[in-house]
Amino acid sequence: DLELDQIEKGGYEHFMLKEIFEQPKSIKDCLRGRVISEQAHLALGGIRQYLNKLVNADRIIILGCGTSWHAGLVAEYIFEEFARIPVEVEYASEFRYRNPIIKEGDVVIAISQSGETADTLAAIELAKAKGAIIFGVCNVVGSSIARASHEGAYLHAGPEIGVASTKAFTAQVTVLTMMAIIVGHRRGTIKESLFHQLLVDLENLPVKVEKALKTNEQIKYISSIFKDARNFLYLGRGANFPVALEGALKLKEISYIHAEGYPAAEMKHGPIALIDEEMPVMVIATKDQTYEKIVSNIQEVRARKGKVIAIVTEGDKQIEAMADFVIEVPGTHEFLMPIISVVPLQLLSYHIAVMRGCNVDQPRNLAKSVTVE
Amino acid sequence: DLELDQIEKGGYEHFMLKEIFEQPKSIKDCLRGRVISEQAHLALGGIRQYLNKLVNADRIIILGCGTSWHAGLVAEYIFEEFARIPVEVEYASEFRYRNPIIKEGDVVIAISQSGETADTLAAIELAKAKGAIIFGVCNVVGSSIARASHEGAYLHAGPEIGVASTKAFTAQVTVLTMMAIIVGHRRGTIKESLFHQLLVDLENLPVKVEKALKTNEQIKYISSIFKDARNFLYLGRGANFPVALEGALKLKEISYIHAEGYPAAEMKHGPIALIDEEMPVMVIATKDQTYEKIVSNIQEVRARKGKVIAIVTEGDKQIEAMADFVIEVPGTHEFLMPIISVVPLQLLSYHIAVMRGCNVDQPRNLAKSVTVE
Repeated sequence: DLELDQIEKGGYEHFMLKEIFEQPKSIKDCLRGRVISEQAHLALGGIRQYLNKLVNADRIIILGCGTSWHAGLVAEYIFEEFARIPVEVEYASEFRYRNPIIKEGDVVIAISQSGETADTLAAIELAKAKGAIIFGVCNVVGSSIARASHEGAYLHAGPEIGVASTKAFTAQVTVLTMMAIIVGHRRGTIKESLFHQLLVDLENLPVKVEKALKTNEQIKYISSIFKDARNFLYLGRGANFPVALEGALKLKEISYIHAEGYPAAEMKHGPIALIDEEMPVMVIATKDQTYEKIVSNIQEVRARKGKVIAIVTEGDKQIEAMADFVIEVPGTHEFLMPIISVVPLQLLSYHIAVMRGCNVDQPRNLAKSVTVE
Repeated sequence: DLELDQIEKGGYEHFMLKEIFEQPKSIKDCLRGRVISEQAHLALGGIRQYLNKLVNADRIIILGCGTSWHAGLVAEYIFEEFARIPVEVEYASEFRYRNPIIKEGDVVIAISQSGETADTLAAIELAKAKGAIIFGVCNVVGSSIARASHEGAYLHAGPEIGVASTKAFTAQVTVLTMMAIIVGHRRGTIKESLFHQLLVDLENLPVKVEKALKTNEQIKYISSIFKDARNFLYLGRGANFPVALEGALKLKEISYIHAEGYPAAEMKHGPIALIDEEMPVMVIATKDQTYEKIVSNIQEVRARKGKVIAIVTEGDKQIEAMADFVIEVPGTHEFLMPIISVVPLQLLSYHIAVMRGCNVDQPRNLAKSVTVE
């Protein structure tokens, strides 16, 4: 059995590490047949009959829990930017226990790796009873949520065994990005030139994620320095703000370090009081429209003696000069960056947990699929 | 000058404590002339000309930072419940740097104690430029945000000196609750009987907050037990979920303890991994429609040996039997509870900070009004 276990881990020490390194392949599988830039082709086979409902939606409600909720928050930025449809992201557990506003024909996107998350399933049933159209974004084929949805798109990321979700997150964001681009293209809110560029950018994601994985040895070194930290802050802006939440959740889940994510500009409304020389601060500071603002945020952290570990776009010199550590990743369209920028955060949480002797694949108190509410 | 300082503090050791204890009065001042239950009267003098825009809004966007953002999250629950209008709450700093979806006639509510918060002001200008109607909810009369708004309602909470906002928060929620009830009443989504009951409940708030303040000595004792904690979790559900965020922010701001708020049901999607015998968990568990659910959440925390301090409705025996400490507060309509349930959390953060020797009124790294972005 131990031998079989080793084979299943494909030579990696843990399923989580295997799944982190599988991401170039899982994203490729997720894109396969759906994106062909040369033919200007972008389609999701599972979304046909109700596509017009999505294209003409007045409002999209996204439901999820944990990592899936974070994928939903990324999708909010992407849908609002590309499709110009207002998006509301809700914790499924909160949604189901209030009397949410849902009208006939409203559109709900429900996200769950396992497709069995109890709160999300109950939220779907509530929305359906009120006449909403449900699109499911699941990994497990034939799962309860997939079956309860009107239509949907599978991740095709392959089985995820590690309790802390990694490749499912990047595949969720990839699927949701494709949905947003399809809708934006149909609505005319994305110009043809941008549409083509985004298809190319999608196709290039696996190679760029592969490159981001090459930071592994460097991140192992950084992990050895911060492995005994009691607390961590994660900061990001725009589409990288939910990535900060997700990075913090990974560290919580498997290393039991209290990490918290924040939109960088909120820091001065409270959390900055926490910062002293003992506080490592992960900052996602890739090149985008708020780059100069996040540079200021880094300076604020430095002025309070916080330790800054910044994820930057390769070639960045400005932040290198002020951060304690910079981790370089390839750039892409800023709304596709979360798929790349999350990778070093996954690796960091993995290495810190291993160094602390934690059970990476089966962290205490946690289950892979939360099938109870 | 020291003597003058003492006079201004009205015999209290710190402005923050004075302002916490002023809340029965500040809420009364906030309600004065606006609510007269005997006459079935509820009106906000500052909101007349554009009231119909609010009543007929398809969507309300609430903008704020820090504590004001938390007040906005409470308001989201209240507006959606009472007025049945979808609400989107945004960090002003995030809103202003993306290309937000705002249509002519869309309604924005901007919240800021000082009325000078730079990010919120910039977000208002952006929304105005796109044709939105702005309602300001400020404390400082004649402030920049009050002047930049089309209409609005002042808190009438009196000057707030302590950097950690307390009486402004309860007054913000009070004003926003009145707005939601006015709109719901006009839209017919609140029945007359509920309308009258809510007016009575509003009028009773000062007396109930006064009673909640009587927990002070008990909370001082609890603070002495947990003052050396390195971390805290705060859990709540429904309208008390944002109260959990606000309670955690207070502790961060003035005691520099890393505290984090979560919707209670999300705990099992990650944060529960943090829980061991060293983790105090504040649970807001007052009687409402999710009461039984939060009882289960308390049991989950106890099963992992976490220390539970629960805020409960007076007379609650069920939670008393399972929590390490219970703090009893008077009950009211569940959507008005945040104004009462936040009070013990303010007191807890105050006492812990004092016991740790922190500068309560001027915490490190923080400014009262964040007039820079």
